Amino acid sequence: MAAQTVATSANASAADASVDLGPATGLSCRECGTRFELGPIFACVECFGPLEVAYELPAGDPEALRAAIEAGPNNIWRYAPLLPVPADVASKPSLNPGFTKLVDAQNLAKELGVTGKLYVKDDSGNPTHSFKDRVVAIAVEAARAFGYTTLSCSSTGNLAGAVGAAAARAGFRSCVFIPHDLEQGKVVMAGVYGGDLVGIEGNYDDVNRFCSELIGDPLGEGWGFVNVNLRPYYGEGSKTLAYEICEQLGWQLPDQLVIPIASGSQLTKIDKGLQELIKLGLVEDKPYKIFGAQAEGCSPVSTAFKAGHDVVRPQKPNTIAKSLAIGNPADGPYVLDIARRTGGFVEDVNDEQVVEAIRILAQTEGIFAETAGGVTVGVTKKLIENGVLDPSLTTVVLNTGDGLKTLEAVSGTGQTATIRPSLDAFRAAGLA
Amino acid sequence: MAAQTVATSANASAADASVDLGPATGLSCRECGTRFELGPIFACVECFGPLEVAYELPAGDPEALRAAIEAGPNNIWRYAPLLPVPADVASKPSLNPGFTKLVDAQNLAKELGVTGKLYVKDDSGNPTHSFKDRVVAIAVEAARAFGYTTLSCSSTGNLAGAVGAAAARAGFRSCVFIPHDLEQGKVVMAGVYGGDLVGIEGNYDDVNRFCSELIGDPLGEGWGFVNVNLRPYYGEGSKTLAYEICEQLGWQLPDQLVIPIASGSQLTKIDKGLQELIKLGLVEDKPYKIFGAQAEGCSPVSTAFKAGHDVVRPQKPNTIAKSLAIGNPADGPYVLDIARRTGGFVEDVNDEQVVEAIRILAQTEGIFAETAGGVTVGVTKKLIENGVLDPSLTTVVLNTGDGLKTLEAVSGTGQTATIRPSLDAFRAAGLA
Repeated sequence: MAAQTVATSANASAADASVDLGPATGLSCRECGTRFELGPIFACVECFGPLEVAYELPAGDPEALRAAIEAGPNNIWRYAPLLPVPADVASKPSLNPGFTKLVDAQNLAKELGVTGKLYVKDDSGNPTHSFKDRVVAIAVEAARAFGYTTLSCSSTGNLAGAVGAAAARAGFRSCVFIPHDLEQGKVVMAGVYGGDLVGIEGNYDDVNRFCSELIGDPLGEGWGFVNVNLRPYYGEGSKTLAYEICEQLGWQLPDQLVIPIASGSQLTKIDKGLQELIKLGLVEDKPYKIFGAQAEGCSPVSTAFKAGHDVVRPQKPNTIAKSLAIGNPADGPYVLDIARRTGGFVEDVNDEQVVEAIRILAQTEGIFAETAGGVTVGVTKKLIENGVLDPSLTTVVLNTGDGLKTLEAVSGTGQTATIRPSLDAFRAAGLA
Repeated sequence: MAAQTVATSANASAADASVDLGPATGLSCRECGTRFELGPIFACVECFGPLEVAYELPAGDPEALRAAIEAGPNNIWRYAPLLPVPADVASKPSLNPGFTKLVDAQNLAKELGVTGKLYVKDDSGNPTHSFKDRVVAIAVEAARAFGYTTLSCSSTGNLAGAVGAAAARAGFRSCVFIPHDLEQGKVVMAGVYGGDLVGIEGNYDDVNRFCSELIGDPLGEGWGFVNVNLRPYYGEGSKTLAYEICEQLGWQLPDQLVIPIASGSQLTKIDKGLQELIKLGLVEDKPYKIFGAQAEGCSPVSTAFKAGHDVVRPQKPNTIAKSLAIGNPADGPYVLDIARRTGGFVEDVNDEQVVEAIRILAQTEGIFAETAGGVTVGVTKKLIENGVLDPSLTTVVLNTGDGLKTLEAVSGTGQTATIRPSLDAFRAAGLA
């Protein structure tokens, strides 16, 4: 009886009525629009295009929806009606990420010559200190719905920690794959949660290819790869960054956003989230510009953007911004579309500029960012200097990770002086 | 005119009407009760006892006060009416710490044999990932009120980072003092915010003595040492842990709390916070027990507790729990009083047990704790095994810091296997 009721409800397009992912009604090909049932698939059988979650989003009074969201928990589950998760998701074991600080960065604004408002969306405040906790939390719900018992991923480090931690809390086994030469902080963190951590001799793109092979092999049976076979769900987690930024701005769109690009998924999903808020009437429609940020040593998207290409040519990464070191970014073409459609830009900075930007952010706002945060702040600085980003408008810059995980980048930082415990020694150091 | 109004108001006992620290009316000696004006003093001139902030706390309807708090910001400033800070504190540049997660730790409960409710108050979610952001945020307001322009401290690492970050954001110069041999993560983090970082050849107690000397010397003029001459204000920040725990439990006292002991200040202030909530009618009065946790290699308080002594005999620290390595804890005797008064206990665990507990917490709840968190979880485990802590009641265990800052403790953690990117190599590793 109950199953029949579900099958004739608004969710009828999800033919497998036993899969309850809330407002998600199916998957839809981003290229050709073909629809699929909710399931652990990630590429269109017709055209090999990537699949996206399709929704029956809540209709009705935006005021009531805003109020319901504001009355929700201080984490991403406040947006459950807009995500592919069951309605009772907040009661399940999760790291409950999100609702991180939107920092009013007046000191940084002054330093960069911004005369409008400048905000840093600081995702280092998430449970494992990167934005990856958001996407993993959504993938965990999909893994539950599809009956997986092992969580896996290919990772440049942050995701490995996020999957390990989320799996431990949610009761999954985990086995994650990383390039063998990552920063020590990321390796130890990924390993401490008790899952298996496998180093692959190669770069991230090698790891990714290996995981795709594993999914097609009996060895990988019963495994939910959060960023491969669960990717359509996983990606939706990044929409919560858009929701939070707008809610924290008093339900308003910012004028400009600066977003890092690794695979490009995050940037495209933030745009998707902004569009949903407009469609739902939760924010007033107005133009906004999206700027993408890459490291020069792995800049396939900014290179294509500047050359006016529609195709992104793969690169072999060589940068300290390892969490962005994806040489063959799956969502690169979509990023180009969005940057062009919104009147934004895609820019890159070199490793010295990344380190300089990490220091600027720390010294102005007390935020110690990962190298990826150095990339976004560095690109913001460059875009202002080049007259591309308007310093008189409201701008939001993303910091997606934590400096404690990429200590190597600022390893020259240390004690100003080392002295005996005496006033004479301190006087001699000349610091008073 | 305005000044006269203030001088004849309820705050008249603060003779210096230009110092606005909200409900704080003066300082009071914990030993002899002598009252002092609000100012940068920390020891009683009559008896050398420590000074505490005295308040004119809000009178009236507890329901209204609860509602006002719940409508406040998602950080410690929601409790501004109970803290020595001006009423408009939330509008000043601050890292805005607090309102961290109270994690319902059902997996850990099962692991430790807890049949009641077990919660982890996870302060690794603070801006610099330790509880020190709370105490520093309050000290910054005192430093502003007293006209200081340099912020300083003696630190075992976490405080150094918290002071550096808070100073950067709030517009102070900083110069902080640490033992020269701290964990690398703490050193780099403390240095990245651009202030001066001075390594002292000695342990924390040597650093502390040096800072006391510096305050008495012209070299230290104009310097606010958050944990020395601003200590009475600084310490009050720990009360917010008590407020948050009770609010997050639905305005109820827990039955048992397990709190780490370094100087002992945090434990005494949490007790003070709980007592204030009872006095204000914000929670129903009932018995609670406070348990103190130390590392065996620095256990002056647990040693005194078990021996039935009222005096704490200093020790020379030798433990991996460096953030708790204070051999001569200033508030040790008060901790003994509180543990005995509430029917609690003070226990210690050795370094192996600390590491084991870090792993247990990570593998059950996905929380990667600093060594200090390993101490509290390890002590909780031991107290349950010894029948001292009642596993059928509601217990809150504090995690006060982040595992990324003490990677050395779990440095054996790493890759389960390192393989070539091939299915054969993965099959051979035996992890599928």
